[in-house]
Amino acid sequence: MSHFAPVALPHANRLINHGPTVLVTSVFQGRRNVMAAAWSMPVEFSPPRVAVVIDKHTFTRELMAAHGGFGLCVPATEAIDLTHAVGSCSGREVDKFARFHIEATPGPVLGVPTIEAGCLAWLECRLIREPHTEDAYDTCFAEVVSAAADSRVFANGHWTFNDTNTALRSIHHLGGGLFAQAGDARQARPWPGP
Amino acid sequence: MSHFAPVALPHANRLINHGPTVLVTSVFQGRRNVMAAAWSMPVEFSPPRVAVVIDKHTFTRELMAAHGGFGLCVPATEAIDLTHAVGSCSGREVDKFARFHIEATPGPVLGVPTIEAGCLAWLECRLIREPHTEDAYDTCFAEVVSAAADSRVFANGHWTFNDTNTALRSIHHLGGGLFAQAGDARQARPWPGP
Repeated sequence: MSHFAPVALPHANRLINHGPTVLVTSVFQGRRNVMAAAWSMPVEFSPPRVAVVIDKHTFTRELMAAHGGFGLCVPATEAIDLTHAVGSCSGREVDKFARFHIEATPGPVLGVPTIEAGCLAWLECRLIREPHTEDAYDTCFAEVVSAAADSRVFANGHWTFNDTNTALRSIHHLGGGLFAQAGDARQARPWPGP
Repeated sequence: MSHFAPVALPHANRLINHGPTVLVTSVFQGRRNVMAAAWSMPVEFSPPRVAVVIDKHTFTRELMAAHGGFGLCVPATEAIDLTHAVGSCSGREVDKFARFHIEATPGPVLGVPTIEAGCLAWLECRLIREPHTEDAYDTCFAEVVSAAADSRVFANGHWTFNDTNTALRSIHHLGGGLFAQAGDARQARPWPGP
């Protein structure tokens, strides 16, 4: 059973605020794809906007441009091998959802693939066309139009990473297939004064 | 004694590949500033380029625009309180280096402040002027021109987060002053086949 619940749009960017590696999903006219991206970030809270770097030669960029939207899914610890695997082959040659047994559901607003099994959250994103930055920096801007997260670790706009949920952590690519798992969270204390 | 050692430019973007919260430093004509930014990412490995979101109303943006460069420093666990503190006041009113007792040294190429005590790494970045994205998304592109890291956790282009260095971890802002510390690293295993 899924523990996913909708996330209000003003909270959507909290899902990727801490720099997790994400899966980027795309679909157009029956063809679909999923790849890994370490380089994404929010750029604005309201409206919720994001930027993600996706090489212009990828099948994902082709599908995104044709469709006008894409999905970002936040994989959990259990999906480390999967995240590395989908980042290591091209969707032009293989349907990676089938190849890697990934269950996906069309998102409610854009219909892009959303992944819950093995993931902590997903966001549906509508591409904001910016030809210059897409071309010069492979940087794609988008507005988040729907989002959901595993309510065991994200509720009321807040992540809770503690010792009750150590398997439900985001993963952060250090390079070469090595991932840091998000560790326990710590609250900053007020600065003690001069 | 500092454990910092230079990082070769082709490896520089590995320093922020995993989405840490960073400190952004800036200086111009004797005035200087430091702020926290959760939203930064590499956009290219070679040449090493980055994007960082900095509100156009900040003192940092003013100094960056005047100077043409800025610094990114990667704070460690011990700097959680500091990172939150420098993100919660404006450098227009106070020299935050003095206020928070931050030791900084001018970087070797651009002369922007670099911070080693309490930090894991720093990068000097030369702004690439992109007026539209700076204006529309507060997103500033830059090229990394020098970098260094604590050799106890970053060497030969690779982070090593293991149980010998649990205090030397990057921090990842979840929101509201709550930070996830980077946990132990795990290597992805090859996909086992169909």
